[in-house]
Amino acid sequence: MLRKYKKVNDLHGIEFREKYIPEVAKPTYVILGLPDAGLVGGISTEFLISNGNFKEFAQVYSESHLPPISHISSGIAKSPISLYHRDNFILVHSWAAIPSGSVQALASALVEYLSKFSPALIISITGLPVQNRLDLEKPSPFWIANDESLGEEINRTGLMKRFEEGYIAGPYAPILLETARRGIRNLVVVVESFLDLPDPEAAAVALDVVSKYTGIQIDTSALLKEAEEVRAKIKGLMEQTRKEMPGYTSVKPSTYA
Amino acid sequence: MLRKYKKVNDLHGIEFREKYIPEVAKPTYVILGLPDAGLVGGISTEFLISNGNFKEFAQVYSESHLPPISHISSGIAKSPISLYHRDNFILVHSWAAIPSGSVQALASALVEYLSKFSPALIISITGLPVQNRLDLEKPSPFWIANDESLGEEINRTGLMKRFEEGYIAGPYAPILLETARRGIRNLVVVVESFLDLPDPEAAAVALDVVSKYTGIQIDTSALLKEAEEVRAKIKGLMEQTRKEMPGYTSVKPSTYA
Amino acid sequence: MLRKYKKVNDLHGIEFREKYIPEVAKPTYVILGLPDAGLVGGISTEFLISNGNFKEFAQVYSESHLPPISHISSGIAKSPISLYHRDNFILVHSWAAIPSGSVQALASALVEYLSKFSPALIISITGLPVQNRLDLEKPSPFWIANDESLGEEINRTGLMKRFEEGYIAGPYAPILLETARRGIRNLVVVVESFLDLPDPEAAAVALDVVSKYTGIQIDTSALLKEAEEVRAKIKGLMEQTRKEMPGYTSVKPSTYA
Amino acid sequence: MLRKYKKVNDLHGIEFREKYIPEVAKPTYVILGLPDAGLVGGISTEFLISNGNFKEFAQVYSESHLPPISHISSGIAKSPISLYHRDNFILVHSWAAIPSGSVQALASALVEYLSKFSPALIISITGLPVQNRLDLEKPSPFWIANDESLGEEINRTGLMKRFEEGYIAGPYAPILLETARRGIRNLVVVVESFLDLPDPEAAAVALDVVSKYTGIQIDTSALLKEAEEVRAKIKGLMEQTRKEMPGYTSVKPSTYA
Amino acid sequence: MLRKYKKVNDLHGIEFREKYIPEVAKPTYVILGLPDAGLVGGISTEFLISNGNFKEFAQVYSESHLPPISHISSGIAKSPISLYHRDNFILVHSWAAIPSGSVQALASALVEYLSKFSPALIISITGLPVQNRLDLEKPSPFWIANDESLGEEINRTGLMKRFEEGYIAGPYAPILLETARRGIRNLVVVVESFLDLPDPEAAAVALDVVSKYTGIQIDTSALLKEAEEVRAKIKGLMEQTRKEMPGYTSVKPSTYA
Repeated sequence: MLRKYKKVNDLHGIEFREKYIPEVAKPTYVILGLPDAGLVGGISTEFLISNGNFKEFAQVYSESHLPPISHISSGIAKSPISLYHRDNFILVHSWAAIPSGSVQALASALVEYLSKFSPALIISITGLPVQNRLDLEKPSPFWIANDESLGEEINRTGLMKRFEEGYIAGPYAPILLETARRGIRNLVVVVESFLDLPDPEAAAVALDVVSKYTGIQIDTSALLKEAEEVRAKIKGLMEQTRKEMPGYTSVKPSTYA
Repeated sequence: MLRKYKKVNDLHGIEFREKYIPEVAKPTYVILGLPDAGLVGGISTEFLISNGNFKEFAQVYSESHLPPISHISSGIAKSPISLYHRDNFILVHSWAAIPSGSVQALASALVEYLSKFSPALIISITGLPVQNRLDLEKPSPFWIANDESLGEEINRTGLMKRFEEGYIAGPYAPILLETARRGIRNLVVVVESFLDLPDPEAAAVALDVVSKYTGIQIDTSALLKEAEEVRAKIKGLMEQTRKEMPGYTSVKPSTYA
Repeated sequence: MLRKYKKVNDLHGIEFREKYIPEVAKPTYVILGLPDAGLVGGISTEFLISNGNFKEFAQVYSESHLPPISHISSGIAKSPISLYHRDNFILVHSWAAIPSGSVQALASALVEYLSKFSPALIISITGLPVQNRLDLEKPSPFWIANDESLGEEINRTGLMKRFEEGYIAGPYAPILLETARRGIRNLVVVVESFLDLPDPEAAAVALDVVSKYTGIQIDTSALLKEAEEVRAKIKGLMEQTRKEMPGYTSVKPSTYA
Repeated sequence: MLRKYKKVNDLHGIEFREKYIPEVAKPTYVILGLPDAGLVGGISTEFLISNGNFKEFAQVYSESHLPPISHISSGIAKSPISLYHRDNFILVHSWAAIPSGSVQALASALVEYLSKFSPALIISITGLPVQNRLDLEKPSPFWIANDESLGEEINRTGLMKRFEEGYIAGPYAPILLETARRGIRNLVVVVESFLDLPDPEAAAVALDVVSKYTGIQIDTSALLKEAEEVRAKIKGLMEQTRKEMPGYTSVKPSTYA
Repeated sequence: MLRKYKKVNDLHGIEFREKYIPEVAKPTYVILGLPDAGLVGGISTEFLISNGNFKEFAQVYSESHLPPISHISSGIAKSPISLYHRDNFILVHSWAAIPSGSVQALASALVEYLSKFSPALIISITGLPVQNRLDLEKPSPFWIANDESLGEEINRTGLMKRFEEGYIAGPYAPILLETARRGIRNLVVVVESFLDLPDPEAAAVALDVVSKYTGIQIDTSALLKEAEEVRAKIKGLMEQTRKEMPGYTSVKPSTYA
């Protein structure tokens, strides 16, 4: 017999179907890996899922907001957006690009759903496309926060530079505003990256920063060793993602230090 | 006098009009042939209809979800989507491409309608476009399932390899998710195929697999002999289908063994 | 003072305004001339209107489904779709292309309106674009029916060959299905034609067939003599019509005998 | 303090805000100058406004149906569509092109609003693009009417020829049908014109005809003297107007005498 | 803990979230800097914010009317549209282009929100693209008003010439009409500018005029010194803005003195 997911939430026409409601330790950190410039976020969460003993506990369904596409993993079809957990961490990973017309609804639904876990912090991971990416020995990480006290706290760690001035577009932008509205802290870890090429090195930098800040144990050496494979594997997603981002690149600095 | 179909269901603005309600033996298998890459599904079900003594019992109508197009068969106009039955089998065949904006609604309506027959399994047939199709002596079949226990069962038969990792888009994708939601088993038989050319050889491989798995009697030799004719006959549908699939090909592997 | 049409029906946002309700003898035949491939239908009904003493009794209006366009005839502005009658015949003629997004609504409204005359048969006239149209001495007529007993009846007359297998798209397609739903017989007379050029010769063939089948008196010699003029006159409508048919040609055979 | 217009009518999402309700003598004539081929109508009513002592009494507002554009006259911003009056005349003038998706709604609202003045006749002025416009010493005027008795009356004056057969599209088309529905007489004065160039000479011909038919005093010599200036001044509106008329030119004869 | 903005108004699906309700002295002047031709308005208000000790008191949010984009300032994400105040001045500044489909709704919501401060005058600042901008030693300012008495008052100051005749499109156009509807005075300061290049010199001219008219203290010398930097910094916004203005440039004179 087929095991059915239980439908628990239908928010803005977006359903969160849970296999079970996980016990998540405190302080709860949520890590978001949504397809974006350089797929830095998606590579990061995919690496955690494949290498970190995370357990899937929910999938996201939407007839109106997600494209008619299934992700196949070991022969089994799933929704392209899934949620995983381990210890005090929740991961949200998407195997498909978010349609540009749906990012606002998804952001609202996701933040509303996640709020029931009372997260101490939601961490979004993304790339900052830079022209001279090839010349950089190691891409630098920057932070964006939805609150000044969070910003000061991050600054004191010395782990990332402040993203001085510019724009952020795509799915992470409304999540920043939606979390602010609900009083949930949201940090965006922005790493210099390619725009059109999947960038596992940038993902490794992001994961190192997240590891140091949250205490999660991650060995990113495998990510660097298999960079070429990772790149080939998600080339298709890169193309889809680019199509959903006409006019905006995810993060665009006016100036940054 | 004109024989009217009886309207029995109006689901999501999609009507299923039945001539009669068929008695379908157990275990009930449903075979879906919807236009897709290589038209592998459509060729398969069309062959069964023409050669297998199946009886039409219902047609699908929708002012809002199907294009203003009629299929003509021996001078008589019909809805392009029809349902047929024989013994313990139900066939769903479409003579027209499903508009990309309607695949979600059609998937929901179709699964809801079919659920009244309590099918043991719904089998979707589709193609997997491969670059080297011309070099393959015999295209290989793969399986995708909406449930792990079904996957294990198929694996034990040795009839098909597991589709390791990738995407499925188009009408079969929401059917996989919609059946999972309702606890109905759904198997997709994926055969290596051309993308833009109708591929009767791939359909023959799919039918052989379906025959061995379900016990349905099919002699596919005629399909192979008349391959050229079949190809010419459905060239127009191939073109329509391609137009409805912008951005997605139906099945796209990241990696497959 | 201005004579107002009386509004009698508002179906699917489409109004039928009648000057008067005509007495139509039995058996009532309805002939449809809607713009389509080769404008075969439109030329046929226009010829009947101009040469056959038909009287206009109703016009079709729709703010949402028809374009902001008026047909001018002898200085007077009218709706582009009008209904005419004589003896036991009703004609429906359109001077403008039906927007592709409105064909379903118009088909439903038209069949609903016409049903009050309990027609014995609705005859749609259309063209079948063929590559070698220039080489044909006389284009051949084919039939499509919405019912098998009607098909057999037509076959027995020997007037037209059966249209074996293929598609019909555009406004006549939903009319075939809508009439079937309501138990009204619908015959489509399909004549080989040009695709992009108005084809009065094909219209003459269609009218000869209709004349022999229904007993209506028509002398089509004038139509053939003035073929060049007719062609020039409706070149503009041909262009509009083509624009409303992207992706579909009206009738597309897979195979035909 | 700012003088507010009083909102008096909200029809189909279109508001008519009146400074005051004018006393208009009988028989009341309404002259419409909406942007169209050659801007013949707009030039005509603009000339009457600038040279004829007409007083503005109402403006048309619509958030959903009019573009976010204001007309500036002597530094003061106004709605692009305004109504003026003098003696027994009402003018409707638009300084902006009507979006093609809004012509039906505007036509309905305008006719409904104007009906409260019980006009004896609504006169629309437009151009008939002709290829040989440059060769014409003086462009000819034609008439279109929404009623046969009106047509006969105009014919007896000998002022214009009958527009034999063809189409009219754009804002004047639904006004012809909407007035017919309400029993209001509507005459379209159609003058041979350029398609893409503002055509003051054609406007002068239209105004001469209107003057003779209605008795309104107009000296069009200034219009002819300043033709070049007029043309330069409304070049921008010409461009906007063209964009709103894809697929249709305003008046298209099949044949005309 | 994260400080939440209090949601105070939800107008047309647009929210104004206030940190606090400011005390604003009388007479209250509102200065609007929305992205437009030459970004003259945006540069002006950005300069006032950075150099004038203005305090942010509210942000504008809208899931349906604003793009999924956040402005980052010193690492902190904010809505791209914010409101500031000092003494008797309120500033409205947007860091992102207003989508063309949302200008009407934003105009209505903004005027409705601002009306609670009973402003003596709303001043919009914009550019007037001129071909010979490079040849102008100092660009000239013009005025547009929504009321004749306001126009006369401005004229008496001799600070600006009257904008004789033409169009204004984009977000300032519906604000002119919406303020007129509510009896609020609205002045548009229009300065000759580049179309596609950010134009700090034009902004300096606008600010000088505003300073003299309202008494606000501004030293625009820094703006002129850092013109090159300002231009580089907002090049991205210039591009976005251009995309939202297809078909219209913001202010288009037919003639101006």
